[in-house]
Amino acid sequence: VDFSEPSSTPDKAALAPWRSPLAHALHRNRSLPNSRYAQLATVRPDGFPANRTLVVRGFLPGGNQLRFVTDGRSEKVGQGDRAELCWYFPKTREQFRIRGRLRLVDAQCADEGLLKARRVMWHELSDGARLSFLWPEPGRERAGAEAFVIDPPDNRVPARDFCLLLMEPIYVDHLELRGEPQNRCIYRLENGEWEMSSVNP
Amino acid sequence: VDFSEPSSTPDKAALAPWRSPLAHALHRNRSLPNSRYAQLATVRPDGFPANRTLVVRGFLPGGNQLRFVTDGRSEKVGQGDRAELCWYFPKTREQFRIRGRLRLVDAQCADEGLLKARRVMWHELSDGARLSFLWPEPGRERAGAEAFVIDPPDNRVPARDFCLLLMEPIYVDHLELRGEPQNRCIYRLENGEWEMSSVNP
Repeated sequence: VDFSEPSSTPDKAALAPWRSPLAHALHRNRSLPNSRYAQLATVRPDGFPANRTLVVRGFLPGGNQLRFVTDGRSEKVGQGDRAELCWYFPKTREQFRIRGRLRLVDAQCADEGLLKARRVMWHELSDGARLSFLWPEPGRERAGAEAFVIDPPDNRVPARDFCLLLMEPIYVDHLELRGEPQNRCIYRLENGEWEMSSVNP
Repeated sequence: VDFSEPSSTPDKAALAPWRSPLAHALHRNRSLPNSRYAQLATVRPDGFPANRTLVVRGFLPGGNQLRFVTDGRSEKVGQGDRAELCWYFPKTREQFRIRGRLRLVDAQCADEGLLKARRVMWHELSDGARLSFLWPEPGRERAGAEAFVIDPPDNRVPARDFCLLLMEPIYVDHLELRGEPQNRCIYRLENGEWEMSSVNP
């Protein structure tokens, strides 16, 4: 994994073999407003899984790490680094299950390249998305309406609780429900190399 | 929990308070073919979460247990009983996160009422869904096309590997993205009673 400064031109040679079918699915489902919504599962300290919808915000340039954003005050921070993303594409009826490890990039991150990636991500957000990081603490007793009336924050200076959340995939299960009968392909990272196999659906 | 013979007329008094907003969401999203698809997270023996799309097949009559079907040969059998379902409704932009415990009802189940519920579920499936339980073992090396050419099974006699999967909710987090700014309501089962609270999104 290259944690150096993100480059704006991804190294095509570094792309995992599942990136091509995923890009294809994204393209073919681009007319659906929610094609970038997926469900991220983590494990709670009490042993129960947690599962929520997140926006997949593309990849960190130069590698295969998926980008998300999260609030440093949210519950998922503190649920460990083991995760599985379930990404279903309704139009083409296919599913990618992407298992991997999470890395949280907050304001205290010691890596200059990742801090820059955090600033880039903040800048790319919509005004509404940026504003939500200034709302009262998530999950606490509902605050009054006035607590949600806030001036839009500077788009160059990330809010204190804004975090870039990265996921480094180690296993991908691609299922196509439209196959005959169905197609299912497993991609597994072994000793730094992606191995691919076709399995029963 | 009433594991007696399922009745065809649900006891309205037994319905949890989150059933009403969920029924409303289902109704308002009924034009979407995938409104009954949701993502079920469990925990793998290696500590990673697992997450996959399932069809939510309504409720077991007389209570709040969600119904799913699964193949007894699939990986989720053996991932414990702790689960969280993430159910996102695109049209109304709302999400239900439903945490609870799973119960697998297979052919060896000792409860006559649940065995009947398993037969009822089998009968309600489409021919295509029933057929998939006779396919070669899921996740194994891809079998030849001829292994998937099978006569439709009897709709009154469940296939050996067919399982009814039930989920008994203990916690529900309902988020409405369209609120001003957003509405989020938590339902928690405490000593057999559902407690409800409004929290920050």
